[in-house]
Amino acid sequence: MLKNAIVGQSGGPTAVINSSLAGVFQGCISRGADNVYGMINGIQGLLDNKTVNLTQVLDSSLEIELLKRTPSAYLGSCRYKLPHYNEDTFIYEKLFKILKDLQIHWFFYIGGNDSMDTICKLSDYAKEINSDIRFMGIPKTIDNDLILTDHTPGYGSAAKYVGLVMKEIIRDATVYGTQYVTVVEIMGRNAGWLTAAAALSKAEDCEGVDMLCLPEVPFNTDNFLTKTEKLLKSRKSIVIAVSEGIKLPDGRYVCELSDDARFTDAFGHKNLTGTARYLSNMIMKKLGTKSRSVELSTLQRCAGHVTSRTDITEAYQVGGAAAKYAFEGHTGEMIAIKRVSDDPYQSTTEPKDVHKVANLEKKIPLEWINESYTDIEPIFHQYARPLIQAELTPIFINGLPRHIYLKEL
Amino acid sequence: MLKNAIVGQSGGPTAVINSSLAGVFQGCISRGADNVYGMINGIQGLLDNKTVNLTQVLDSSLEIELLKRTPSAYLGSCRYKLPHYNEDTFIYEKLFKILKDLQIHWFFYIGGNDSMDTICKLSDYAKEINSDIRFMGIPKTIDNDLILTDHTPGYGSAAKYVGLVMKEIIRDATVYGTQYVTVVEIMGRNAGWLTAAAALSKAEDCEGVDMLCLPEVPFNTDNFLTKTEKLLKSRKSIVIAVSEGIKLPDGRYVCELSDDARFTDAFGHKNLTGTARYLSNMIMKKLGTKSRSVELSTLQRCAGHVTSRTDITEAYQVGGAAAKYAFEGHTGEMIAIKRVSDDPYQSTTEPKDVHKVANLEKKIPLEWINESYTDIEPIFHQYARPLIQAELTPIFINGLPRHIYLKEL
Repeated sequence: MLKNAIVGQSGGPTAVINSSLAGVFQGCISRGADNVYGMINGIQGLLDNKTVNLTQVLDSSLEIELLKRTPSAYLGSCRYKLPHYNEDTFIYEKLFKILKDLQIHWFFYIGGNDSMDTICKLSDYAKEINSDIRFMGIPKTIDNDLILTDHTPGYGSAAKYVGLVMKEIIRDATVYGTQYVTVVEIMGRNAGWLTAAAALSKAEDCEGVDMLCLPEVPFNTDNFLTKTEKLLKSRKSIVIAVSEGIKLPDGRYVCELSDDARFTDAFGHKNLTGTARYLSNMIMKKLGTKSRSVELSTLQRCAGHVTSRTDITEAYQVGGAAAKYAFEGHTGEMIAIKRVSDDPYQSTTEPKDVHKVANLEKKIPLEWINESYTDIEPIFHQYARPLIQAELTPIFINGLPRHIYLKEL
Repeated sequence: MLKNAIVGQSGGPTAVINSSLAGVFQGCISRGADNVYGMINGIQGLLDNKTVNLTQVLDSSLEIELLKRTPSAYLGSCRYKLPHYNEDTFIYEKLFKILKDLQIHWFFYIGGNDSMDTICKLSDYAKEINSDIRFMGIPKTIDNDLILTDHTPGYGSAAKYVGLVMKEIIRDATVYGTQYVTVVEIMGRNAGWLTAAAALSKAEDCEGVDMLCLPEVPFNTDNFLTKTEKLLKSRKSIVIAVSEGIKLPDGRYVCELSDDARFTDAFGHKNLTGTARYLSNMIMKKLGTKSRSVELSTLQRCAGHVTSRTDITEAYQVGGAAAKYAFEGHTGEMIAIKRVSDDPYQSTTEPKDVHKVANLEKKIPLEWINESYTDIEPIFHQYARPLIQAELTPIFINGLPRHIYLKEL
């Protein structure tokens, strides 16, 4: 009888989700797992019996190193909503049969809110049927919206990327000395953590962004135009960072006013895009000023070439800690990051009941946002700055970063 | 009587135009210029007497080093079209009066086609009035569309950026294992050099892009849809790189079909944007497939965090060579890059008559494009690959790259 582990990745890719995968893999191997399987395309692929034996493909330390430095999800991902087992027992029976055939003892799932919901349901069902498979969740999201963890792996690197490109956009936008409003759209459906990271661009060598529009506070079109007009009186080039998820006081997303809101995913989430373009067009029409919109789009979540070493390291650590706790018998938990100190920054990991995490969202506290809803208070800088520290340079081959990829995908 | 030099930057920013500025500055100082002035916002600013004494602000080797690693135009830029002196002598008299007051002996202008036109006209006028001011042009453009030079400084870094983000986008786009078409829009009005750089993403670890749409060949909407449909039969995630400047057989830009083509600049160039969004919408409507558009926008021209060291070095060299030739008495010339060998890559600089360069565009030779207009031949890889080699890491301070900037701007 073999004792095997399985690991899957779910939800939107990040620059460091593969570092967590490396952490789980190494953690399981060093604790004596016979094989570590990977689910191809998460739990959705697993239901189709799509797996890969990672013990065979990740067979050298160079592969592991490349894995840590490769963005996106090495195993593929999914946006699959597992029904509750009271609604559909069949799917659970099928899944546990597959796990039994693979001789799985430890099950790991790396993802955001929806993935923690999956761990929740699977561990509950396991209890129900007296299965002793251990189910552990590993947090991952550039949105940083999971509760009970100081922050989520993936956020630090995305925040570093956003701060960095904002500096470059600001430098670029000032060159002509003409009146110009640049509106930059940043991901984050309901939580503005990543948009707020645009404020990290401010430094001795950079004016920083002129306005933040966060999804935590209602967006008022008239106020936005008034503020922009006022800013244009003090300087020529204005750079505004807006969250894709900003909403009107009536609850509609701003991007719904544009013609780009078309899709809804498996979790019922609307596809948000076009917010910056809509606002930029409005600025041109109403203020008669030149304007440009920039959507950071997928670039911000897959920028493996500019990661935070702090983030890469923590992503690896939560993966390793998940293996440790699972092997010690824990189940139905998510590994959280606990901040020990700000300066010098130190953190550690701790397991949390996944039922207390799943389906909840951590937003920016309102007291962190200034009165006029245009900026973020210094407490945010104190919180976020340590998370973007240090770099992990890609391995450049023939001029471009080297990745690792799974041909089965 | 002092002997001073002046240097200006013009046109769109690049990641390495400041390295050329550093080259001019060091070249002039080491050859005994008393002062090196910078034009603030190019020749347009100079006409308003807006200059800065660089000898005073660039006063340490650390500043020079930061300058080389700072994207965008340190001195600011302009898109100012100098009229011919037969049409407007007044402006020339004004300009030469300003230069005389500043005791300028050597005049350098870093830019693309339009800037070489400026050098052309100024050196002609100087000859006309027997002025002994030396006028030299230094090539710069991510578009790589200047003739008589093997390539232009700025292209290598932008090409490296494009190749790199295409790899990341390709990795990101494959994760869900669902049918998906990603259309990425890349700069380059009439020349497809930068769009072609998307093909550099192909390597042992990456499938590469599935289709290129270059502005050198007419764009046929029906063919495009047929090819995309065919590609979708062979793999699920399709990534297409399109130039912003692709045109219909009737000569209209594809983006004119969308609602985003609004502006015309001082040179009569249309503001091109929305091509990828238009095509992505069309794919969704006509093929019923999910699709996403990504505009690399200004990010591709100001990505100082991922430059080609080859490019940075050559940008510095053309600046230095311009100083050398100007001090030796040359005028009305542009410094070109001459490729000495492909492998190992070696290059040198040589002066070229700017009259033979100005207002002409170098496009991709048609024989470099495959028969079905969807890919680029191996000769392009041989040409472009050396230009993206090696890196120059930014100086990271507190988690973000350090820039140098001019408060006067």
